[in-house]
Amino acid sequence: MSVDDLVEGVLNRRRRDLARLISLIEDEESSALDVLSRLYKHTGRAHIVGVTGPPGSGKSSLVTRLTAEFRSREKTIGVVCVDPSSPFTGGALLGDRIRMQEHSLDDEVFVRSMGTRGHLGGLARATSDAVRAIDAFGKDIIFVETVGAGQSEVEVIDIAHTVVVTDVPGSGDDIQAIKAGIMEIADIFVVNKKDLPGAEKKATEITTMLDLDTRERTWRPPVLLTNSRSGEGIPELADTILKHHQHLVDSGEMKKRGLQKSKDELRELMKFKLTQELLQKLQGRPEYEKAIERIASREEDPYSVAERLIAEFLFKESR
Amino acid sequence: MSVDDLVEGVLNRRRRDLARLISLIEDEESSALDVLSRLYKHTGRAHIVGVTGPPGSGKSSLVTRLTAEFRSREKTIGVVCVDPSSPFTGGALLGDRIRMQEHSLDDEVFVRSMGTRGHLGGLARATSDAVRAIDAFGKDIIFVETVGAGQSEVEVIDIAHTVVVTDVPGSGDDIQAIKAGIMEIADIFVVNKKDLPGAEKKATEITTMLDLDTRERTWRPPVLLTNSRSGEGIPELADTILKHHQHLVDSGEMKKRGLQKSKDELRELMKFKLTQELLQKLQGRPEYEKAIERIASREEDPYSVAERLIAEFLFKESR
Repeated sequence: MSVDDLVEGVLNRRRRDLARLISLIEDEESSALDVLSRLYKHTGRAHIVGVTGPPGSGKSSLVTRLTAEFRSREKTIGVVCVDPSSPFTGGALLGDRIRMQEHSLDDEVFVRSMGTRGHLGGLARATSDAVRAIDAFGKDIIFVETVGAGQSEVEVIDIAHTVVVTDVPGSGDDIQAIKAGIMEIADIFVVNKKDLPGAEKKATEITTMLDLDTRERTWRPPVLLTNSRSGEGIPELADTILKHHQHLVDSGEMKKRGLQKSKDELRELMKFKLTQELLQKLQGRPEYEKAIERIASREEDPYSVAERLIAEFLFKESR
Repeated sequence: MSVDDLVEGVLNRRRRDLARLISLIEDEESSALDVLSRLYKHTGRAHIVGVTGPPGSGKSSLVTRLTAEFRSREKTIGVVCVDPSSPFTGGALLGDRIRMQEHSLDDEVFVRSMGTRGHLGGLARATSDAVRAIDAFGKDIIFVETVGAGQSEVEVIDIAHTVVVTDVPGSGDDIQAIKAGIMEIADIFVVNKKDLPGAEKKATEITTMLDLDTRERTWRPPVLLTNSRSGEGIPELADTILKHHQHLVDSGEMKKRGLQKSKDELRELMKFKLTQELLQKLQGRPEYEKAIERIASREEDPYSVAERLIAEFLFKESR
């Protein structure tokens, strides 16, 4: 399938072409970049909502409920489920995915799971590109759901405009967890399973912690109680998500973040392309192979060799 | 403190200077690279032993026991404890560290914990550089201990010559975990807490899995039973670790890996230096700022801009 066909397919909202493009992204095919490059001007319209929190805090059922809620408000939905915990765990999301089936016949809902192929940096990059593809496809709201158990998730969730952090009553460790890092990334806290004992207490604990946060901020993360089984609190959560989006736009924060994101992405792409270009020039040259051997035998150090090769090959070639 | 002083300090085995250098590495100070560059030719002598496995499988006590065992054999020891699970958890290793105190008065044992500063790629890089510093310092065996709970650990453990994977009896999930990814990286399996019921069964399960692995390999990972409380099985484990090292040397695998590592590292360093160079040239230029704005407003796509800026600034400047 040609780049032209794929671009046209995604812009004409053919689901199979969107799925194909995301597979190319996962496989790190260079044609994916060509397609994304041409889709780029059709992006930037979706509201990206990250949902993270400890395992068992009901992220998937919350996303399923929110999908239903936003569908009733005529919004179209994309869902990207990311599981960076492979290869040591993995597979745990499968059961959760089944619940999402209620939306599987709804053409306005596009769901995609992403595991870890390649290494970690690759996952954040692939997720970001997949979200961009879904954005170009025209979905209004895109959920990025990830297990909140490590720093890799923070990188993945970084692409969201609005970050919802879920938690459940009980398990004293959670407070420890929240202290450590979630506070800084959360825009909305959700205590799910509000029917369980201790839900109010947990919400109070989070509120107390927020009181201790003296940083100046224009948005104070609200703490909501939900029950994704009964649906209680879901409409309020949907309202709050939209309210946060409006706040980002009104405060100028959305524009500021857009600039920062463009800067970061440009830097990453330049890094990628530069390396590619240099390696192409070095590949197969005896000087390059020799340098590697000399590093391995400690005759030279890699830091000096890196500088020399860059100077010799990249710049010399371009003269 | 000057680069010269630090290089000299490490080579003269001053512990405080080694600790200082590792702090510079963690802080990503550029002077750390200068020091490492000059230390490089004094490295490549240590045997790097990775120890990983699920939380609670007794990694730290195993490392403490192995340290005592190797000390009795006149080997000097370095230990780097890595916890990539921050910021969501963190702090859990503190208790484990306390156990290591029995060696705190032994000058021939150097212990260092590393948390996550900067992002994940940074942790693997920092760990590798810290191990290199300890190698130059002259330690014979360097343990790299990390919680086996995600792909980031695989990246960290990648620097080891010998990977010991620990497990404990019980918890059926472990088998699932091992299936997923540990099989491929383990050189030695250890079922710790052999006094617990099910230890033999667990060892048999692992052996059965190894039987199913039909890949051709010159080293079949042995499965050992240990008890890090009583010390049972520790001398045998120490023997097996040394035997694996000998195998790597004899089979030529050590040399092969050294070349691959040099190649990977050279590539990473070139990537880093190229980006640094380009960004220095772009910083503060109105064309650069303008390009970022045009990307954010979707007038241009980042993929094309990256190519243009590389061509314009990097190559033009060098003419």
